[in-house]
Amino acid sequence: MAASKPRNVAQKLIAGHLVSGEMRPGDEIGIRIDQTLTQDATGTMVMLELEAMGVDRVQTELSAQYVDHNLIQEDFKNPDDHLFLQSACQRFGIWFSRPGNGISHAVHQERFGAPGRTMLGSDSHTPAAGALGMLAIGAGGLEVALAMAGEPFYLKMPEIWGVKLSGELPDWVSAKDVVLEMLRRHDVKGGVGRIIEYCGPGVDSLSAMDRHVIANMGAELGATTTVFPSDGETRRYLRAQQREDAWSELRADEGAAYDIDEHIDLSALEPLIARPSSPGNVVAVREVAGEPLYQAYIGSSANPGYRDFAVPAKMVDGRVVDPQVSFDVNPSSRAMLETLTRDGLLAPLIHAGARLHQAGCNGCIGMGQAPATGRNSLRTTPRNFPGRSGTPEDAVFLCSPETATASALAGVITDPRDMDMAYPRVADPDDPVVNEAMLQAPLTPEIARQVELIKGPNIASLPEIEGLPDALELPVLLTVGDNVSTDEIMRAGAEVLPFRSNIPEIANFVYDQVDAEYLARAQATGDHAIVGGDNYGQGSSREHAALAPRYLGLRAVLAKSFARIHWQNLVNFGVLPLTFADPADAEALPRDSVIGLEGLHQALAAGPEISAQCDGRTLRLKHALSERQVALLRAGGLINWMRERG
Amino acid sequence: MAASKPRNVAQKLIAGHLVSGEMRPGDEIGIRIDQTLTQDATGTMVMLELEAMGVDRVQTELSAQYVDHNLIQEDFKNPDDHLFLQSACQRFGIWFSRPGNGISHAVHQERFGAPGRTMLGSDSHTPAAGALGMLAIGAGGLEVALAMAGEPFYLKMPEIWGVKLSGELPDWVSAKDVVLEMLRRHDVKGGVGRIIEYCGPGVDSLSAMDRHVIANMGAELGATTTVFPSDGETRRYLRAQQREDAWSELRADEGAAYDIDEHIDLSALEPLIARPSSPGNVVAVREVAGEPLYQAYIGSSANPGYRDFAVPAKMVDGRVVDPQVSFDVNPSSRAMLETLTRDGLLAPLIHAGARLHQAGCNGCIGMGQAPATGRNSLRTTPRNFPGRSGTPEDAVFLCSPETATASALAGVITDPRDMDMAYPRVADPDDPVVNEAMLQAPLTPEIARQVELIKGPNIASLPEIEGLPDALELPVLLTVGDNVSTDEIMRAGAEVLPFRSNIPEIANFVYDQVDAEYLARAQATGDHAIVGGDNYGQGSSREHAALAPRYLGLRAVLAKSFARIHWQNLVNFGVLPLTFADPADAEALPRDSVIGLEGLHQALAAGPEISAQCDGRTLRLKHALSERQVALLRAGGLINWMRERG
Repeated sequence: MAASKPRNVAQKLIAGHLVSGEMRPGDEIGIRIDQTLTQDATGTMVMLELEAMGVDRVQTELSAQYVDHNLIQEDFKNPDDHLFLQSACQRFGIWFSRPGNGISHAVHQERFGAPGRTMLGSDSHTPAAGALGMLAIGAGGLEVALAMAGEPFYLKMPEIWGVKLSGELPDWVSAKDVVLEMLRRHDVKGGVGRIIEYCGPGVDSLSAMDRHVIANMGAELGATTTVFPSDGETRRYLRAQQREDAWSELRADEGAAYDIDEHIDLSALEPLIARPSSPGNVVAVREVAGEPLYQAYIGSSANPGYRDFAVPAKMVDGRVVDPQVSFDVNPSSRAMLETLTRDGLLAPLIHAGARLHQAGCNGCIGMGQAPATGRNSLRTTPRNFPGRSGTPEDAVFLCSPETATASALAGVITDPRDMDMAYPRVADPDDPVVNEAMLQAPLTPEIARQVELIKGPNIASLPEIEGLPDALELPVLLTVGDNVSTDEIMRAGAEVLPFRSNIPEIANFVYDQVDAEYLARAQATGDHAIVGGDNYGQGSSREHAALAPRYLGLRAVLAKSFARIHWQNLVNFGVLPLTFADPADAEALPRDSVIGLEGLHQALAAGPEISAQCDGRTLRLKHALSERQVALLRAGGLINWMRERG
Repeated sequence: MAASKPRNVAQKLIAGHLVSGEMRPGDEIGIRIDQTLTQDATGTMVMLELEAMGVDRVQTELSAQYVDHNLIQEDFKNPDDHLFLQSACQRFGIWFSRPGNGISHAVHQERFGAPGRTMLGSDSHTPAAGALGMLAIGAGGLEVALAMAGEPFYLKMPEIWGVKLSGELPDWVSAKDVVLEMLRRHDVKGGVGRIIEYCGPGVDSLSAMDRHVIANMGAELGATTTVFPSDGETRRYLRAQQREDAWSELRADEGAAYDIDEHIDLSALEPLIARPSSPGNVVAVREVAGEPLYQAYIGSSANPGYRDFAVPAKMVDGRVVDPQVSFDVNPSSRAMLETLTRDGLLAPLIHAGARLHQAGCNGCIGMGQAPATGRNSLRTTPRNFPGRSGTPEDAVFLCSPETATASALAGVITDPRDMDMAYPRVADPDDPVVNEAMLQAPLTPEIARQVELIKGPNIASLPEIEGLPDALELPVLLTVGDNVSTDEIMRAGAEVLPFRSNIPEIANFVYDQVDAEYLARAQATGDHAIVGGDNYGQGSSREHAALAPRYLGLRAVLAKSFARIHWQNLVNFGVLPLTFADPADAEALPRDSVIGLEGLHQALAAGPEISAQCDGRTLRLKHALSERQVALLRAGGLINWMRERG
């Protein structure tokens, strides 16, 4: 075997799973996916996609579905979704983590995380699993469904950003402050196109759950993912979880290099806080000390560890939070809640005034715990985007459990170093409670095939999508300008989101705030086209913005240019995205023009140019479809294509 | 002192507080109110009413405001209400129980309940306090506000229904089964116009919290209230709560008689269950055993005691609930949660699969925990009215904690006597955790006067209501038929309820589903009348159904007849309720007729007959107002009248 160039951890993980491409930053690579993670807010679509593809059983080593987002059951919709997900897990061979069992990322690390593995997850904080030496990436639901069906995941090879840690954290400074320091230095786009790899002697002093905190919020830097080595601490953690056999060592080779190098001296850090309303607005806590607060909130996937509750418990022991402060405690998992209870750490929190919530995401994703108007909220959560808490013009700060708890006691934002007590340093326990009772294992294939999906009245199978015919006559039913976002195409919000598992229903909201009559025209017309400007489909990656219009008969979008992810979603759901050879043509196509496309199959295969007839003249159009994507479109999208492959 | 007739407990309580009337069943009596209880869903209006009346400080011995209903904070409205209530408590001299501190009835019994006292509460389960030998009655918000201002409470003297208990409860049968037996015998109207008084040797074997269970659900029988004697157990309970000085003995006199007599042999009872969808649909558990269930739910004001969690904890110890069952645990108070944690009883519940929720009302009032479509839910809550869970066509059963827990383990409805274990009989602890840290005491009057009410953007002071002029010209803006309910006048539901503290906003929904144009007409017209049929204003007692139309300019309702409570609400909020001497006149008054009333003040004072002019003819009308009510109307309603009295 030839001596190869020394590799870092990220490169080893990728190389070990590479199925196509070369590991040159910027080149497209395909990697094999070992594990998948889905949560309930995105998981119902994933399961409907598996059903529509005709998948018999997932092909991954392990797929796990969690119910942690939509735990508030104000009517039948959320509990119906939970039962649907449970039945789909039984049908397709997926682990099911029952409602109230905890946050996906925390439970996954406890029970399934394994060094050296890849994972794709339909949640943006999936990279948290990098804490155990995994390559874990967040993606859209259909991409995760494809990975479950055994397909590789394609991405542009990121740059590897080596962050060397030295020293040890001072008293009252913890892992959250490390990632807040990264955000202070690089802001929320600093990690785009990069994998962050932590290395150096400082890593040794961070527990596996400390690393989770840092890897989780790598997502806030925009990074593709974050990785840590798998070392003695990883082994200790897995042994404590009674899973030492899942451990394997994974370290950077001696002399391995990084595309970018960075250094953090842990011993030089101080308590940090992200001010409203961006995770990148980081300042030292002392700079905002003294500001009043309404709420102090501990828990979430960004501070889910034992010490993240144990340190606050020891801080409040024998004390009571300020009379004005709502002290919200959100256990990360049932096992964590059990361990805290066993160790006598829950009682001090309750006694001090904690509002103890069900284990799950809760207020972190706006499911309860919204702050009062004009009041400050200090949270250990990963994000403070405007309004995410549920309260318009909210003022959410992100900080460590130490800072949140010191502030809860004082009633004003407080640097925890000002606490009049010795720092209660807490080690991760070697004997945590392990309870898998609420984790339901996959059934055997024979039994699984007999399971019927349980669909409440609000859960509808995905609509059948017809393949692309060779000729189309498409009236233009809507013309829009530049930078139309997927929020304009398919808005989110409390009125619309409950229909996330019901395409026929959610389709009634397509473009409704742009043109209230579009829906009626589409329903009356069927097959049609939309004409757009530049950057069509920017913003959120939501798949409904492609699938729901397709359900209404959208066959082609003609635009000056497309946003990348929406362009891909259009193709995946069978809508033809075309650009104008002459952008001025966009303005020359008013509503109700009729676009004629003939000999499409051959034209698309022949090259990037294609022509259409419109009101007696010829329109020159272009497409950017690969051969594979032309095949997708002819089949009526990715789901049909997967199904036809069998 | 002359020897008086022997009295029962209820009679002693009433006699000790009687300020007007005689204690003959059916006669109106007025009683002095010692304590009041308000919760957040009704309390915000009560506080706005105190503000509008110009009350400086409550005149009761003790008033306590709880935050237990609206704990889900999906946006700013609920937390803003909490801050408003906190500030109002500080302003008016009221105890404030912070969000998450527990259910009003449970916390009140723990910290404030006292034998021999009267209490008025703006919650229908206020009678639970009868467990300690109090006379505790539920009422509308304005009546409670008046009691807080020092006014007596008026009611028709109820019949006293003596229920003699003998024997002791068998294994696996508990207090809930006693009140379910009452409901089995008498259904949901069996207690109307009555006070239920439990007596006899069987009372001794029931703990103070067992009595709470029974008194709480007396409301489901329609009873005015339920009372228990104050005896040695009451003293033990108060001693355990470190409040023995609040104890006094209160027993029926030797030879005291009851208006109605009943007997229950506790030893003959078996586990009972109320089937959907009425608390009166009671059958033996064994009759429905074997039916599947989605949910088993423990907690609520109807089973808030230590043993109501401790017995389930011992039942599930070392076991796990059925994989299909959502096991929802709703602690009744923070102190209870602390005590259970201290005693090692929380861990078994969590380990068995409990979804542990914040202390409060939660799913019992439809705030979360709704069952899935078409699935059975077993609950220890007091009510299973259709849809109350949040899920349309729900199937909620009411039962004891024993039955709920046995069923959670088995996955089907199960008679707890079929558990393969010895009955874990649990005594109420003599050393519960007492924690008043989240109960904020009233401020001194001097400091209180400096407190400003904190009103978020959705909290508006009550609108000023103008007094009744001597002459009115009122166009009829709406005519409706018989049996119009307060739900039609002012609907409830998720769209409307958030505006409960904002009359100008909630007024936009008045009659909106009966006549969408009424609002616009009222806004354009101002002073106006509505013409109704028989039984106008039936249903829910909500005050908004009078105040919000008054805000829109409603000055008089002319109807064939009125529902009692709405009639009173109209008067209280300054709207003149008139009936037709000739009911046929109702049909002779089409919309846009104009009704002229002159010399009103003298006419109302002169007697029940009053005449009006309409389109050139004279209408003969009647009123049923007392002298005091005429004065109220002239002042513009009860709030103005109270304010003018100073």
